[in-house]
Amino acid sequence: MSAFAELFDKHRDTIHQATEAWRTRVFYAHWPEVPSGKIYGEEAPATGKTRFEQQLGKPFDRLLQQDAHAWHGEEESPYGFPLGITYPVHSPDVLVARAKRAQRPWMALSPSERAGALVEALEQASAIFFELAHATQHTTGQGFVMAFQASGPHAFDRALEAVVAALWAQQAFAFQAEWTKPLGKTTVTLSKRYTIRPKGVNVTIGCSTFPVWNSLPGMFASLATGAATIAKAHPRVVYPIALVVAALQQAFDRMGLDPHLVQLAVPTPYEPMTQALVGTDGVGTVDYTGSTAFGEQLERFCAEHGIVCYTEKSGVNPVLVESVESLDAALENLAFSICLYSSQMCTAPQNIFVPARGVIEQSSGRTIGLDEFIARLVQAIDALVGNEKMGPGTLGAIQSPATVERIARARATGAPILRDSGPIVQPEYPNARTATPLLLQGDVRNRALYEQEWFGPIAFVIPVASFEHGLEEMVGSVRRNGALSTLVYTTDATLHQSAEEALLEAGAPPSFNFTGPTWINQSATFSDFHGTAATRAGNATFTDLAFVTGRYSVIGTRCSGC
Amino acid sequence: MSAFAELFDKHRDTIHQATEAWRTRVFYAHWPEVPSGKIYGEEAPATGKTRFEQQLGKPFDRLLQQDAHAWHGEEESPYGFPLGITYPVHSPDVLVARAKRAQRPWMALSPSERAGALVEALEQASAIFFELAHATQHTTGQGFVMAFQASGPHAFDRALEAVVAALWAQQAFAFQAEWTKPLGKTTVTLSKRYTIRPKGVNVTIGCSTFPVWNSLPGMFASLATGAATIAKAHPRVVYPIALVVAALQQAFDRMGLDPHLVQLAVPTPYEPMTQALVGTDGVGTVDYTGSTAFGEQLERFCAEHGIVCYTEKSGVNPVLVESVESLDAALENLAFSICLYSSQMCTAPQNIFVPARGVIEQSSGRTIGLDEFIARLVQAIDALVGNEKMGPGTLGAIQSPATVERIARARATGAPILRDSGPIVQPEYPNARTATPLLLQGDVRNRALYEQEWFGPIAFVIPVASFEHGLEEMVGSVRRNGALSTLVYTTDATLHQSAEEALLEAGAPPSFNFTGPTWINQSATFSDFHGTAATRAGNATFTDLAFVTGRYSVIGTRCSGC
Repeated sequence: MSAFAELFDKHRDTIHQATEAWRTRVFYAHWPEVPSGKIYGEEAPATGKTRFEQQLGKPFDRLLQQDAHAWHGEEESPYGFPLGITYPVHSPDVLVARAKRAQRPWMALSPSERAGALVEALEQASAIFFELAHATQHTTGQGFVMAFQASGPHAFDRALEAVVAALWAQQAFAFQAEWTKPLGKTTVTLSKRYTIRPKGVNVTIGCSTFPVWNSLPGMFASLATGAATIAKAHPRVVYPIALVVAALQQAFDRMGLDPHLVQLAVPTPYEPMTQALVGTDGVGTVDYTGSTAFGEQLERFCAEHGIVCYTEKSGVNPVLVESVESLDAALENLAFSICLYSSQMCTAPQNIFVPARGVIEQSSGRTIGLDEFIARLVQAIDALVGNEKMGPGTLGAIQSPATVERIARARATGAPILRDSGPIVQPEYPNARTATPLLLQGDVRNRALYEQEWFGPIAFVIPVASFEHGLEEMVGSVRRNGALSTLVYTTDATLHQSAEEALLEAGAPPSFNFTGPTWINQSATFSDFHGTAATRAGNATFTDLAFVTGRYSVIGTRCSGC
Repeated sequence: MSAFAELFDKHRDTIHQATEAWRTRVFYAHWPEVPSGKIYGEEAPATGKTRFEQQLGKPFDRLLQQDAHAWHGEEESPYGFPLGITYPVHSPDVLVARAKRAQRPWMALSPSERAGALVEALEQASAIFFELAHATQHTTGQGFVMAFQASGPHAFDRALEAVVAALWAQQAFAFQAEWTKPLGKTTVTLSKRYTIRPKGVNVTIGCSTFPVWNSLPGMFASLATGAATIAKAHPRVVYPIALVVAALQQAFDRMGLDPHLVQLAVPTPYEPMTQALVGTDGVGTVDYTGSTAFGEQLERFCAEHGIVCYTEKSGVNPVLVESVESLDAALENLAFSICLYSSQMCTAPQNIFVPARGVIEQSSGRTIGLDEFIARLVQAIDALVGNEKMGPGTLGAIQSPATVERIARARATGAPILRDSGPIVQPEYPNARTATPLLLQGDVRNRALYEQEWFGPIAFVIPVASFEHGLEEMVGSVRRNGALSTLVYTTDATLHQSAEEALLEAGAPPSFNFTGPTWINQSATFSDFHGTAATRAGNATFTDLAFVTGRYSVIGTRCSGC
């Protein structure tokens, strides 16, 4: 048994359980989401913090990528201090050449050998979770707990999911066959072999808000199907993905694999990198998270060059509130979704459609008028923002100064301000860049205002004539702008069904009546698909079959008389 | 049990056997390939012939597509007479609107219900095989037996393959789940449902040489995943696909399904149709077989409009002959491949690389010099061409006058003519447009001459310095031009392995040492993938997972408290 087959054996239960969860869509988490020393080792929290503090102001020297032609870094914590870390810079040519070399023996392994090695690499790399949480917090602005979960256990579970999805797909076909065709009284036989070949080196283009969570699925789907992968970091958010790449490289190295199976590409102001990387000969697949404009440009380029391109661009996520069991429960949930990481999530709700006659509350038997609805939504947001224990960690800080400017621009549109944005105190970080939600009133006669992605803590309440009108606006918006989440509150079974059908028809994932500790922004690995590949928001879905099957070919060899 | 669930039950064994064959890649054929009344009913051959003769000169009135705004036809048999058949013409708007309406209830069925209905439709439609053979012969120019096999059993097996591949993929995930997440001492539960939604209406753009075989995989992969499909015929080759569409429409109608699930789009000189069809709102996937230039234009358009596009464009298929057990056996096989349907196949060999020192023959212990190799290849072609029993049926007629002109252009290039092209008598058809293979000598210093697709009976023998040089040329050509088949003759295990590795690396499907009744042009359903999606020849593969998984989304619905 090869060393990699042994690793598959070692992780057989994990792979089996993850595969079963992925297929049956029940709850499963291989890495617990609680940032606790009881789970990850008593020393782990302190060690992670120390490592983070020791890294500040120094070159990041943990990558196994030699001969950098420059060192560069420009990260600043949204909590108000420069990180002062520099990273090694390599040219696209060097990165792709090394990836191609690393890829050759890797693609010769069997899919299960690759799966075994990848789960082992993830297990080893998970030792960095606490440092990764600090690195994520101080580049993205996420609160610490969210940073731990999003870049650590949740992202690693998404990576595991991609590995088992890719393994399952690759095992669809036998790897060899004797093909014997009857020809009247005789037969003819060919010996056949089926070889899995990756389309080429993968380039994964990371974003600034979820630098690990959005990148690992594409990277691991590519690795699992025989490709080497290059993680191109956002220039201002390098540290988290650099940590993960370094940990994976070290794990690969320990297993006797070429560490260049995964590499970090660091852009500089002089070498923006993406275009040059994607255009380098040998690149076969691209994963992209980012703006629609650049994403569309990339899709065109890839189509012209025979490169398979998976994108998550931006969408505009709508909510419709028609009737509820308890308005407080609904608004508490909605307020949390709007506040979580200050809405810097591609799944955050933006446009809340409410019938002008108000919202029916079953528990009280009342119809709550639009003005009261707005007042109570504002109260719910204020309650969370003002909660000294919950607020700062939930809202976090604002990743990009452009988001602060966007809030100012939204405020200046003239739309009635229902709740103004302001700072929130981050107790440990007096210089943090923060902003609480700006709530505006929208008007269906001026869709252009709110039918664009206002990324960040900007949301709209938009009166509509009726449930049907609201649904029509919602569906129209999904068709025009794409969406990564939708949410409908209704206690009426008929309306529920018509909303589900209309949203599915438009290609958006419908959710209903969220209250309590599940939020529309979240997508649970193994159970929720992230993205539908059916709206303008992009063609990537974590992780359906299409997300893995486009990355490789199964090529048949035929031999007569062999 | 629904009527469609009963159909699944009725065809359960067929679906099971086809799925197993598709996964294990062993020989399987649901429809026997022999055009015999013993298999298909004693009356079937004569009935088919009569139906064909009765159709000539008349409007084709068997489609269930009402309200044509025009009738049009311009087909002429390559065997030398006009067909005189007209077909109903509908505008893209009408076709797509009807497809969308038919699609709505169809996508609400379960994947297994759809599979049951589709196998039933294929079984019913298979009653047309003999008329279809005549229709195919007298539009494409194929010999009768080939026409029967290619449009009948082989094409229908490819359709069945697409159905089972799509079913298998769609059954990857549960259709519902209770998701319960532990939260310390409590839990939270969401009810989830997963719905399969086609990307949109499918448009399948057919070609003039394999109007059914190349079209059914995309059409049935689309139907099986919930889409309605529109078969856009080549203007000069409508009859075969019109017959299939009509038979399927009638079968759907008998099952109580909307017959517009499958429709025929007939282009006219005033409405070329493809661009307009693909650009109509509601179209989600396109399947294309045809020229590289138009295919690339289509790929760009689709990328810009979020349409999934599967293409089979053209390639240049190389052969390398280094050493053989018996030269006669190899040349007989190669000559047949070159003559079959006068090389009007995307898988036909074009460029034959031979080491200048000649070819080693193991049985005689001789090295056969280049001149003798060429002389014996020409002899082998002449023997088949001159075989009155075998020749006419094997070569058939030339579909397009452009191919005849291409032969003249090739002859005029100045490349040494090793064997000239000439007519071949088709006993029943004195006016047939025919051409035997033109064999030219190529020169690696002038790659531009032979590194383009010379579609039709045009092949090159190209001397190379050595096996290694020949392999390098072959692999280079695959990278530069794409390929749908490659063939290497070598008795040396080391050379065999190096060729296989190099060709796989380039993305081409390697074949070795073909002799006897298996030819490089053929691809066996359930066992051979047609296309690799890994070269410039296109991104469609009949039928791997990627060919079906891009056609639909699995969209999750989440509900709290449902």
